[in-house]
Parts: sequence; C-alpha cells; structure tokens
Amino acid sequence: MSSLPTFADVQAAARRLEGITIRTPLLENERVNAMLGGRLFIKAECLQRTGSFKLRGAYNFLASMPDADRKKGVVGWSSGNHAQGLAEAARLMGVKATIVMPADAPALKVANTRASGAEIVLYDRVKDSREEIGLGISKKTGATVVPPYDHVWILTGQGTAGLELAEQAKAIGVTLDAVATPCSGGGLSTGVALGVKGISPNTVVHAGEPADFDDLARSLKSGKKEKNDKLSGSICDALLAPTPGDVTFPLAQKVLGPGLVVSDDEVLDAMELAFREFKLVVEPGGAVALASALTGKLAVKGRKVAVVCSGGNVDHATFARALARR
Amino acid sequence: MSSLPTFADVQAAARRLEGITIRTPLLENERVNAMLGGRLFIKAECLQRTGSFKLRGAYNFLASMPDADRKKGVVGWSSGNHAQGLAEAARLMGVKATIVMPADAPALKVANTRASGAEIVLYDRVKDSREEIGLGISKKTGATVVPPYDHVWILTGQGTAGLELAEQAKAIGVTLDAVATPCSGGGLSTGVALGVKGISPNTVVHAGEPADFDDLARSLKSGKKEKNDKLSGSICDALLAPTPGDVTFPLAQKVLGPGLVVSDDEVLDAMELAFREFKLVVEPGGAVALASALTGKLAVKGRKVAVVCSGGNVDHATFARALARR
Repeated sequence: MSSLPTFADVQAAARRLEGITIRTPLLENERVNAMLGGRLFIKAECLQRTGSFKLRGAYNFLASMPDADRKKGVVGWSSGNHAQGLAEAARLMGVKATIVMPADAPALKVANTRASGAEIVLYDRVKDSREEIGLGISKKTGATVVPPYDHVWILTGQGTAGLELAEQAKAIGVTLDAVATPCSGGGLSTGVALGVKGISPNTVVHAGEPADFDDLARSLKSGKKEKNDKLSGSICDALLAPTPGDVTFPLAQKVLGPGLVVSDDEVLDAMELAFREFKLVVEPGGAVALASALTGKLAVKGRKVAVVCSGGNVDHATFARALARR
Repeated sequence: MSSLPTFADVQAAARRLEGITIRTPLLENERVNAMLGGRLFIKAECLQRTGSFKLRGAYNFLASMPDADRKKGVVGWSSGNHAQGLAEAARLMGVKATIVMPADAPALKVANTRASGAEIVLYDRVKDSREEIGLGISKKTGATVVPPYDHVWILTGQGTAGLELAEQAKAIGVTLDAVATPCSGGGLSTGVALGVKGISPNTVVHAGEPADFDDLARSLKSGKKEKNDKLSGSICDALLAPTPGDVTFPLAQKVLGPGLVVSDDEVLDAMELAFREFKLVVEPGGAVALASALTGKLAVKGRKVAVVCSGGNVDHATFARALARR
C-alpha cells in the first residue's frame, strides 16, 4: 500500500499540464442555490480541450513516459472520450498514436479522433477482442499501452481537475463540505479526491454512477471488487466499466466516501438543468454527479458542494431528449 | 469629445466587479481552427452570472451611483438580459429594483427577474410606452433610471469583458488581430474595444449585427446615426435596438472597425457549432460575432481572432431549431 499515489503526484501532474489544459471555470447559480437551499458549484470539465477531462490523464501519462518509449508510440482502445483525449495528447507531444475503436462507433467520434492525427484500427464488437488487437499492436511496434483509468499517471492527471476545483473554491473563501464526480473505472474520482483533499482535507469526495452500473458503490460497501451484471443499457455510455480497477480500487477505499447512484431519467433532467441554468452542454455520463446533487442523493441543503461535469460529447438526438424533459 | 470614456474607466470598473462577476474562460478548439485556417477564441460570456454579460454594466452602474441615490432604488425596462442583469446587481448591492417588462415576455424571463427580488411592472406592448411607465416610477419614487447601454457606467462595465479577454490572450502569448462582439445599442462593442485596445492597441474590434438590424454598421459607414426600418423580425431578440446610442455612437466612430452583418440561418449554424465543438449554450443574439467568424465575414484564415459569445438565455424550442441544422 506504500505505493498509493499522493497529493504531490497530482501537483507534479498539474505542472506538466500547465499551458496544455484549460483551467475550466467553477460556476455557481443563484436560482439553483435557492432551490437547493445550499451552494452548488459546477466544475465545467465539458469545456476542457477534446470536450472532456480525459486529456488531463492522457497527457500526463505521455509526459511521464521515458523518452525512448515515447518514440515507439502509444496505443489505446476506447469508443469515446479517452480516444479523443489520448489522440490529442499524442498530437500535442508529437507521439504516434494508434486507437482501436469499434466499427460501429459514432462516425463523429471516429472522425474527431482521426482529426487529431491518430491511426484508427476498427474492430468488430462481436467477433474481435479490442484488448487482443491493442496488445498485438503493442507487441509488434513496441508502442506503450495507455489504459483509460487504471494507472497512477492517468488518475493523478485527472486529479488536477480536483486540485483546480479546490483552489478555485478557496480563492472565493469557500470550504467545500463535499465533492462528487462521475465514475466509470475510478480514475477521475480517486484522482479528484487526492487533488481536493490535499487542499481541503475534510471535504468528503463521492463517486457517482448510473443505476445497474454501480460496481464501485457496491464494492466500497462490501470491501471487495464487485462486478456489474450488465455490459450495456445505460444512457451514460462513458460510464460502463464492469468493475473497479486494480490500481483505483485500493485508493478509492482510502479516499472516497459512499457511492451515489442515479437513474437515466435523473441524468436527462440534470442535462436539461445544465442547459437552462448553467448554459453548459453536458453528456449523460458527465451529468451523473450533478444529478445526484439535484435529487438530494448528495445533500446540498445547508452545505457547500461541488460537482464535476466531466464531459460534453453528446450527440444531437440525445441532447434533444434532455431538452424535451421540460 | 473630451468626455469620452477611456481604458482607465474600464480598469476602474474591473476593480468594482472583482469577486462579483465570473472571469469567464477564453476557449479554443483545434478542429475549428483547422477548419478556419487560423486561431479562433471564444470569450464565453454566456457562462456569466445571469446568463449574459449584462451583469457587468448594471453592477458597475449601481456601484458608481452616489449612496443617497442608491437608497431610492433603480428602475429599468427590458424584456431580457438587461432585466436579469439589473435585478441581480440590485440584489447583490441591496438596492430596490423595479423592472418594467412586456406582459407577453417569456414566463421564464419574468420569473428569473422576479427571483432576483425585483418588483416587476408589466405593460402592454401595443397600448403602453415602457419609457413613460419607467420615467413615471422614477419621478414618483426618486429611483434612478438604469439604461440598457447608452451610459458611460454601463459601457465601461461591459468593457471589462474585453479587458479580461485581452489579458487572457496575452497570458497565452497571443496577440489578437481582431475581436468581434454582438451589438444592439453599442454598449458591449464600444466597451470591449476600450478594454481590448488598452492592452492590445493594434487589435481591430468589430461589432456584429443581424441582417436588417445593422443600424450601427450603416451609421459607421455614413458617419451619422442611421435607423432600422424594422422593429422586430430577427431571431436575435436581444439585438433589436433601432439606432446607435448618443453616448455609444461617437465612441464607436473612434474605436470600432467596420461592422459585420449575418443572417438568422448563419446565427443558427453558429449556435449548432458552439453546441458541438465548444459545449456552450449560446442564444441567437449571443452568437452573431461567432457567426461572422464562421462565415468568413470576419477573416480568421492566417490570423488570431476572438469573438464574444455574449449570452445563453435561449428557450428550448429555439435551441432545438439550432440542433436540427445538422
């Protein structure tokens, strides 16, 4: 356990990301506060370059690699935000990137990843294993596999969002009672907890998950890694990891409070409120923590609470569904 | 002409707004840059408190008033962003505000203005004159009229958005060739020009207007105040002022480059791009300057250009229209 990452690792990541990532704003809304009876802040990571926080971890990973490895390139697999974050990080550092994506991934996400200069290898979700394809590329070319969450360099990179958030709250004289982030494999939530607690040790940090994909919430309760029964079927396409990571789970046990679980309808309502009151485009998976605050699952009444809205890569039809909720 | 406001007035306004307004982010997108062949920055004032830049000018006005006048309250007329900005500024300063609004204004805008604690006086657009009602209230109660744009305190308050924008560009080593803002009566555009040019004197600042409501563009050409033929009929409901202001026009002649004019369809396309690439909710009037950059009316190719997206107070149906453009 002595190898768990620390606040100092997040600070080091923040120095690597200086001038690369945007210091996304911490937003507050008087009407929403009045409605909730407390103060709710949104860390707007949907405004981050590539439309999600994923650039933080990917860039920190690439910047931490030995030079010799960087020359051999990187490989990753993802149908969404990690693909775009990794491809853009590689472009910024002049590193060759190969991204393994499902052949039926949204055309826009494939095009966006390709626009960053990455080589795209398409696979068949039914017949092929993306891990096998990715590991095969790594073996053949010497490219380093960049995992989506289960690595210290990734999670400490994501943690810079938490460091910023805590600094921004402190700058306006606010001591946060709680922070919540969306959670898939636990990279964002554990990293943010490290970043927040380094500045505000008594703030409780929670991971939010979609209903039926609450493996981390159940794992934190039982004390061992639990698995989801389903592999798909939530509107939160970015939050479908089946079980907590081997690196993230021990850290989660140490730094996270109880998990928060929300339904797809609650997520759509949160997206509509983000549109109406905060003027933000938030994707379903990015709105999970906000949904937990709006439903009272994360208490805001009489408290000061911040939620990370982690991404905005949502298609037009899904956003129209959220608009139609009101 | 010796009484024209200066950069120092904008700096003084910025000190008054410290801790009140949000330092909204300056955003950039690699794909949009590649598409335009230059660097395009968005100053995201839609994320400002009250959903538009209007809080800047209103708060600066109230903070500049003599104490004795503040005690007698303020009165203003507006169906939209100025109403919300003024009501919130008054709430923040503990000043009584009366807002004269059309009886057929969107229920949400009336409710939002009332939520800030303002007293709402409704009028009939056809039968009543809102100026007469407002001036009557002022005469009876001693309340100070806070105009939407044609006042030095208002325009220098709005100018703080330009000051921030220029500082943010400078901080990342960028010297802007041009800046564009939406324009109705000229408060935002002239204020931003003062703020920008105080830091970056050679940057050309343009005001963007909707087709058929391009009174400032025509006035800058002819050298005298021109009027619009129409009073309504653009999707840009926030940009329908009939003619440049008496305070703003002489300043506009000194500090602004040629005007930019865009169609409603170009505005809807800009809203769609802001959704897709920048994850921002921008209202029609707020997207005019962005539309001018995307259509090439404001050249971006080979240059560094910033546009102000000035507000995000758009209803669900209008936003759905923009989504449907792609």
